[in-house]
Amino acid sequence: MSTVKAYAAKSATTPIEPFNIERRELKPHDVQLEILYCGVCHSDLHTARNEWGNTMYPVVPGHEIVGRVIKVGNHVKKYKAGDLAAIGCLVDSCRECDNCKEGLEQYCSNGMVGTYNAHERDGSGITYGGYSKQIVAHEDFVLKISDKLPLENVAPLLCAGITTYSPLRHWKVSKGDKVGILGLGGLGHMGVKLAVSFGAEVTMLSHTPSKEADAKRLGAHKFLLTTDKEKVKSMHNYFDFILDTVSAPHDYNIYLNMLKTNGVMVCVGAPSEPAHIPAFNLIMQRRSFAGSLIGGIAETQEMLDYCAAHNITSDVEVINIKDINESYERMLKGDVRYRFVIDMATL
Amino acid sequence: MSTVKAYAAKSATTPIEPFNIERRELKPHDVQLEILYCGVCHSDLHTARNEWGNTMYPVVPGHEIVGRVIKVGNHVKKYKAGDLAAIGCLVDSCRECDNCKEGLEQYCSNGMVGTYNAHERDGSGITYGGYSKQIVAHEDFVLKISDKLPLENVAPLLCAGITTYSPLRHWKVSKGDKVGILGLGGLGHMGVKLAVSFGAEVTMLSHTPSKEADAKRLGAHKFLLTTDKEKVKSMHNYFDFILDTVSAPHDYNIYLNMLKTNGVMVCVGAPSEPAHIPAFNLIMQRRSFAGSLIGGIAETQEMLDYCAAHNITSDVEVINIKDINESYERMLKGDVRYRFVIDMATL
Repeated sequence: MSTVKAYAAKSATTPIEPFNIERRELKPHDVQLEILYCGVCHSDLHTARNEWGNTMYPVVPGHEIVGRVIKVGNHVKKYKAGDLAAIGCLVDSCRECDNCKEGLEQYCSNGMVGTYNAHERDGSGITYGGYSKQIVAHEDFVLKISDKLPLENVAPLLCAGITTYSPLRHWKVSKGDKVGILGLGGLGHMGVKLAVSFGAEVTMLSHTPSKEADAKRLGAHKFLLTTDKEKVKSMHNYFDFILDTVSAPHDYNIYLNMLKTNGVMVCVGAPSEPAHIPAFNLIMQRRSFAGSLIGGIAETQEMLDYCAAHNITSDVEVINIKDINESYERMLKGDVRYRFVIDMATL
Repeated sequence: MSTVKAYAAKSATTPIEPFNIERRELKPHDVQLEILYCGVCHSDLHTARNEWGNTMYPVVPGHEIVGRVIKVGNHVKKYKAGDLAAIGCLVDSCRECDNCKEGLEQYCSNGMVGTYNAHERDGSGITYGGYSKQIVAHEDFVLKISDKLPLENVAPLLCAGITTYSPLRHWKVSKGDKVGILGLGGLGHMGVKLAVSFGAEVTMLSHTPSKEADAKRLGAHKFLLTTDKEKVKSMHNYFDFILDTVSAPHDYNIYLNMLKTNGVMVCVGAPSEPAHIPAFNLIMQRRSFAGSLIGGIAETQEMLDYCAAHNITSDVEVINIKDINESYERMLKGDVRYRFVIDMATL
């Protein structure tokens, strides 16, 4: 065991603060990383404040982790000390169920092990995430990253990137498809970049007029102000696919009605209130309303390789870890373009 | 024009009663049918009583029509006097939009013309349905039927049959798939027969214990009493596909949670209340919630041919048209196995 500096929330109502954690001795297939950057995901805030009601304190958030390998177990073949590497939202799964065998570890039938706030499968304790100096994980859950992209901009790909890449790929978004991206935040800005790179005609759907310029700069071909009822109406039956990245409660029907026949709307954000959907809004054009959760390990690697090949990264604001609590407040106000990333050298 | 006996609702609160209607002179591509049987669909009742708020009185319901051709227009090639033929839920569409060109006339971008309670495209009036002695329609919206099956049992295929066939085909239900059919009524009993014939393992989902024997007789392999919480729990993440035929308000989440990863639940019934769906129930297993509306003309013909080849028909109770109002009351109580069909010789 090694003692490692970290930042933790000790309760739902106290700030995130310095905290020492233990990282396990390396098992034969383990990789130990020095964490260089860790992205700040809205899930970190939900968990720190127990907004999903399942937080085990103290919790060390962070699942957008990039770093450098400092040590590997005896049997590790994929990594050696000095390599760049990354860890995303999960660090283990049963590896035996049908989903794991198909590379869908995120849907592991026996429960995937999240990078933080999860029980280790061997009963050895609770996982601690990337707001820390080091992390240890099985090599099968460690990703390779390119040295050609700035590491701080790569970090958010591990959650915001894969969460948007996976549904766009699963539903085969490609050249000529009309795609709407709902919400321009950490997820939405990656959704725009990725969908544009796949050749889709991309429309940013937002209720904030000031986001139009940014959406266009990110590559969006169109901008639809969702408070403009006439313009919304003019886009009824328009989209093949809508990616809904919004976590705040909202009316899904406005967007469902913009789907053409056989259109699909996929939500990756989970508001606190259920969606209220009249069946007719689906029936009349054979529309689908679906959900998608991050991505499997193989697909996450595919996404990282794709982003390296196409020079796609996240727009970030690098912060000192002592400013983490302030960054949460700014994130709640949408005051970030588009992801905070902690420079772990500041810890 | 020819005057034809029919039954109509003249208001939302009066019984369906005898009424004479005019059928148009045959245009070059028109087919005139003598109606032999007409199925009684729940939509007939919704429309007669203006439960969807769009009824134009007087309304002659009925869109599960089988009959015999008595006359054809000069240019009709597909039919001749004496042929058996059928008409389903739609009698026209724009034929020019992308959906029409793809054989998805039911999703016509310019509005398909329903068999009753719809405006004719040429402005000549309102369509009247199958509770009548004769009907006239363009040959492209007339279907061929086999003389090998009893006509009264074929009639409900025109709505209940295609409404369940189309989503089962569109989502490629096939051998080995685990399929749940929710609700054992006119639609549900066709869903069971069709899904079984496609090779699926079929489970009837019902809150009525007494329906178990019937479900098994129809071919269902399993029966799940949906009020048994333990059994429901044991089928979490079980189904590839669920066809939801229920028109009464119900909790969709019980069934969504029974879908395995990538599972799809399709609703073909439209309750008066919206579905309330927490996004997490879709996100956690990449589930889809979709809708489907009847089927296009080519697919309806495919379904009729398939049913003839596989000896699949509806279980019906044949009624005298003077008992139509009583049959509505019995339908509301679920007191029909599984479709009323009017013998039009009684008119």
